[in-house]
Amino acid sequence: MPAGATADYILTGAWGEKAVAEARKIGDVHVAADTSAGGYRDLPATITLSAQPAYVHLTSNETIQGVQWHNLPDLGAAPLIADMSSDILSRPFDASRFALIYAGAQKNLGPAGATVVIIRRDLLDRGRRDLPTILSYATYAKNDSLYNTPPAFAVYMLDLVLGWIGDLGGLEAIAQRNQAKAGLVYGAIDRSGGFYRGHAAPQARSLMNVTFRLPSEELEKQFVAEAKTAGMVGLGGHRSVGGIRASLYNALEEESAQALAAFMDEFLQRNG
Amino acid sequence: MPAGATADYILTGAWGEKAVAEARKIGDVHVAADTSAGGYRDLPATITLSAQPAYVHLTSNETIQGVQWHNLPDLGAAPLIADMSSDILSRPFDASRFALIYAGAQKNLGPAGATVVIIRRDLLDRGRRDLPTILSYATYAKNDSLYNTPPAFAVYMLDLVLGWIGDLGGLEAIAQRNQAKAGLVYGAIDRSGGFYRGHAAPQARSLMNVTFRLPSEELEKQFVAEAKTAGMVGLGGHRSVGGIRASLYNALEEESAQALAAFMDEFLQRNG
Repeated sequence: MPAGATADYILTGAWGEKAVAEARKIGDVHVAADTSAGGYRDLPATITLSAQPAYVHLTSNETIQGVQWHNLPDLGAAPLIADMSSDILSRPFDASRFALIYAGAQKNLGPAGATVVIIRRDLLDRGRRDLPTILSYATYAKNDSLYNTPPAFAVYMLDLVLGWIGDLGGLEAIAQRNQAKAGLVYGAIDRSGGFYRGHAAPQARSLMNVTFRLPSEELEKQFVAEAKTAGMVGLGGHRSVGGIRASLYNALEEESAQALAAFMDEFLQRNG
Repeated sequence: MPAGATADYILTGAWGEKAVAEARKIGDVHVAADTSAGGYRDLPATITLSAQPAYVHLTSNETIQGVQWHNLPDLGAAPLIADMSSDILSRPFDASRFALIYAGAQKNLGPAGATVVIIRRDLLDRGRRDLPTILSYATYAKNDSLYNTPPAFAVYMLDLVLGWIGDLGGLEAIAQRNQAKAGLVYGAIDRSGGFYRGHAAPQARSLMNVTFRLPSEELEKQFVAEAKTAGMVGLGGHRSVGGIRASLYNALEEESAQALAAFMDEFLQRNG
């Protein structure tokens, strides 16, 4: 964000909120769209950009709310920046639409510790010089990502994961696999007659994080506990929103999604 | 560094220079001592603090020059901050003398990716609020080091390394081992009749990084090449200073230091 400029943020969940809070420490921010009034269930119907935004920032997938962009909005000439931490490499995407993509490795790429950044060269040159050196992407570009001692194990594992995705058939294949997995769990929601209530609007449903509620918090607790007994852990929703969250990142096998969907059907039969 | 305050820096090598350059982006800096005029060979004879420094920063071991603090200077009441990245856990030390210690893991603690910070509580409260969230130590303290997704593998390995040091007999034992290793290599320098010239003044010699020169750059190249053939890699000095550097971090076995000292004796016999 050059000094004196304004940056636009599109908020569709908790990670966008964190991003905008950080941006406000650096300069002027305009919230171009914000779906919090509806509980972050949908993508924004309208986006109102500022006069000449330095960039427009969005979160391609919101993990806590389970809301994902499936078609990018048309934002004209404004440089588009995406936090893709939770859905990069889960599907093909047109990188040429973005001026800057950043993604922590720990969801789809490898173990925690590495972050992947894809940045257009002109943004490197436009970056501010008054930030700490390690917060300037130009530092990493100039030093071939070796300004600091890199987390070699995390980078090595990332390379192995890329090879694994290639062996599976690449991004098209992993996207099919991810669609199949999400389809199984959303299917169990949709045939439950309202027992399971999906948080996200159908058109905004995340393929990575399926979020839903049960008729009561008591049933949600019972669901999480019985799922755990059946070998399925980590199904409690984020503490800030409650409910159930099934994360279906690249590493999860289709069999696991099948097992969850079958458990959901069976739990409904017993408690519906 | 509170707004309006001055921070004092003691420079004994390249890492201190980097630290002071970062500090200048945040506030006023006073260089209290600087041994660069002598080529960073020694610890400073005099330290001239500013009137009321917010803190005094030093680098306990400078890896590139091979200069290490063995006795801390008396700095009165000023909070002392140390970059201990390259000698933490190499020897016992009195942590109560420090207000803040920070250390990248990758020398003596474990794989790259984790950083250890030991900070006095009153410094947490005094920290500036206008920095990016991830650059505030208070963020980590408040969130039990789980504000970000931690590099779990690096943290796990650090725990294993701590167990290994404990099994060896703790810090006293690792310090004896490190002294013995450094003694072997410095011994080969000292008995070479000036063929090997140690960079650091004897009282400032690092137990972690033994830096020395040979009579010519040609001989230095030959030394590095022949050492490599003999199975000893990484002996070239940092590109900014040249010469030879033998790093003897905790993980290096005493046998390796013995092998290097024997090679140095033998290389001298053939080329002295």
